[in-house]
Amino acid sequence: MDIHQIEGGVCAAQGFKAYGMHAGFRLNKARLDLALVYSDTICSVGAAYTRNKVFGAPILLNREYLRNGKAQAVVINSGNANTCNADGYEKAKAMSEIVACELGIAKEDMLVASTGVIGKPLDISPLIENVATLVDNLSTTGGSSAAQAIMTTDTVSKQIAYSFDIDGVEYHIGGMAKGSGMIEPNMATMLAFITCDIAISHEVLQSAVSEVITDTFNMVSVDGDTSTNDMVCVFANGKAGGASIQKNTYGYEVFYKALYAVCSGLGRMLARDGEGATKLVECIVSGALDKSTAKIVAKTIIRSSLVKTAMFGADANWGRILCAIGYSNAEVDVSRVKVVLSSCGGDVLVCENGAGVEFSEELAKQILIQNEIVIQVSLGDGDGCASAWGCDLSYEYVRINGDYRT
Amino acid sequence: MDIHQIEGGVCAAQGFKAYGMHAGFRLNKARLDLALVYSDTICSVGAAYTRNKVFGAPILLNREYLRNGKAQAVVINSGNANTCNADGYEKAKAMSEIVACELGIAKEDMLVASTGVIGKPLDISPLIENVATLVDNLSTTGGSSAAQAIMTTDTVSKQIAYSFDIDGVEYHIGGMAKGSGMIEPNMATMLAFITCDIAISHEVLQSAVSEVITDTFNMVSVDGDTSTNDMVCVFANGKAGGASIQKNTYGYEVFYKALYAVCSGLGRMLARDGEGATKLVECIVSGALDKSTAKIVAKTIIRSSLVKTAMFGADANWGRILCAIGYSNAEVDVSRVKVVLSSCGGDVLVCENGAGVEFSEELAKQILIQNEIVIQVSLGDGDGCASAWGCDLSYEYVRINGDYRT
Repeated sequence: MDIHQIEGGVCAAQGFKAYGMHAGFRLNKARLDLALVYSDTICSVGAAYTRNKVFGAPILLNREYLRNGKAQAVVINSGNANTCNADGYEKAKAMSEIVACELGIAKEDMLVASTGVIGKPLDISPLIENVATLVDNLSTTGGSSAAQAIMTTDTVSKQIAYSFDIDGVEYHIGGMAKGSGMIEPNMATMLAFITCDIAISHEVLQSAVSEVITDTFNMVSVDGDTSTNDMVCVFANGKAGGASIQKNTYGYEVFYKALYAVCSGLGRMLARDGEGATKLVECIVSGALDKSTAKIVAKTIIRSSLVKTAMFGADANWGRILCAIGYSNAEVDVSRVKVVLSSCGGDVLVCENGAGVEFSEELAKQILIQNEIVIQVSLGDGDGCASAWGCDLSYEYVRINGDYRT
Repeated sequence: MDIHQIEGGVCAAQGFKAYGMHAGFRLNKARLDLALVYSDTICSVGAAYTRNKVFGAPILLNREYLRNGKAQAVVINSGNANTCNADGYEKAKAMSEIVACELGIAKEDMLVASTGVIGKPLDISPLIENVATLVDNLSTTGGSSAAQAIMTTDTVSKQIAYSFDIDGVEYHIGGMAKGSGMIEPNMATMLAFITCDIAISHEVLQSAVSEVITDTFNMVSVDGDTSTNDMVCVFANGKAGGASIQKNTYGYEVFYKALYAVCSGLGRMLARDGEGATKLVECIVSGALDKSTAKIVAKTIIRSSLVKTAMFGADANWGRILCAIGYSNAEVDVSRVKVVLSSCGGDVLVCENGAGVEFSEELAKQILIQNEIVIQVSLGDGDGCASAWGCDLSYEYVRINGDYRT
């Protein structure tokens, strides 16, 4: 299977255009705050939403619009989440109508997303005033501006794209994501929009999306807070030609792998750019009784505030890793646990058979001062394995969140 | 029912002596690191332990020793948790033997606790060298030194005591606790030792202890990390006289209330002294479908890193409180949620019927800059209520835990 990384983000796939601009949802004119992604033709859409019972008005609207599994565009504002507002649903619906009208498509094919402060009524006049400019500027090179416009406390925009080949047809899949804080499974993502020019039914696409996100976005944790507005939308418009992809075929396998590459790539970017993060922390668990046990252990380690602060301080305090395994509620025989810390600085065995081993603190420091750390945990109970991604917990996380609204 | 707060900590009850000293488990000679609590006569003991699957060797030993529900003393060292060490159990057993021998009691009546770094072999020579001094200095005024000797990252020692009256007999109950980080339910406590001079069987005492801790220690959260060495032990020696307390009697009710006062008092002290904490945060949930729903909601809010950082920054970001309610998995009708923030600075309604209301940011700031904040959440679904205690998340938490071992 040949999967190659390419440029272009959400515009890498044929028939997709995008644009991002400053419209006025934020006071700071230097910050882009309005994005649009559009396909020339109607798309099959696979989506996943936050499982938070408090959810944004756009989530409610999109669930309604996506009952038929089809859409053609998505408009996103940053700066205000349009959540916990009495008039949220009406505002989200108005947003879809305003943009759909300008694009000349049905409002039901126009998805809406909002991200930012919760509980502040959304003023949609910036959209009304700028919708013509937004639509006029749609282009196949607009992926970067769109990725910038959906950022909140993100320090970098997040885009990725791949090309892949099935039976001589070349396909493209690309995505953008935002998210830096309030990140934790049950749809861990914050927002991610992915486009592809493959022909695929809504049902097959939804099945692939639902499966891939459990191993990618849902294995990312920044601070354990599940947002109210998380959403992943994958659009597929069939523009590359080729037959419609069916399940349990070679083509599905290749598409699945490409979708996985996009989602795990974006997930890693989210973790690395976690609020205040100075390093990406990956936890790879192997030898678990089964995959679900491995996932629980990996996620619990990545979530631990004490492991995260130790990573920030480059302190090989492996006892906290064992402690997290112990309270994870996973079926684990502690007396077989082995822990190795690694990075481009080398690797060091710190614990074997559930007990500490002698190791060089100097080497451990050398490994942990790098900006990508891998915590390898072998459980010795079976062959289940899983990865989870997170970041360290720094002074900066506290600073960013101590006064987010002002 | 008359319950009065008194002085004396673990020595407030008749027949109990204690002492704390520097023995050498820590290098810093200014830090006490060895404590002993002793009853003149054998006691009924009620205990609760960490539910972490990785647990300290002393926990294993105490479970064994307490099969008969009886004990007479407990020795505690700080500086090393004696956890995840190949020879941990032998060391814990040796500690019990050494102290029991000096006291002239059976080793099975001698409990052991250790707190500090995980995974570093414990050197017990400081105990061997100092056991005579430790026992010689036991006194009825030694509660304070014992409370100091069990501290790790705690900034203040934690003691509390009450007297109460049943049918003309005056009883005393007092306790000490330690714990600052790695604090989260499933036995949330870290270490707490409570003494009482009431006559009570092991079974009745255990039942009271098991029930009280679920509403007190287990409702405290500092950082979501459940320690490997948590333990609460309640000793009752009957020295005050009076008949043995039976369940479902007025006497049991009074004792229960006094035990609750000690446990919730120590729990609040733990929360207030959470690592890096600048303020105590209490969440009171009312109007829940039932008590267990109220507990889940209160605990989830107290645990949220985003709520904790907002409290640190005195930012009335109530959207994060609703967000936490939403991901708590509790059965809640969000459209009925009401949130009031209060402290000695006043109180302010920030959310009603699940949506924001206009409020004075100035007043909110005035309320949130105080050092004891109450988040009052009314759910409007029933009459279940519960409280949880935690603290804010500050720069200092990150500093303390970035390099704990060195």
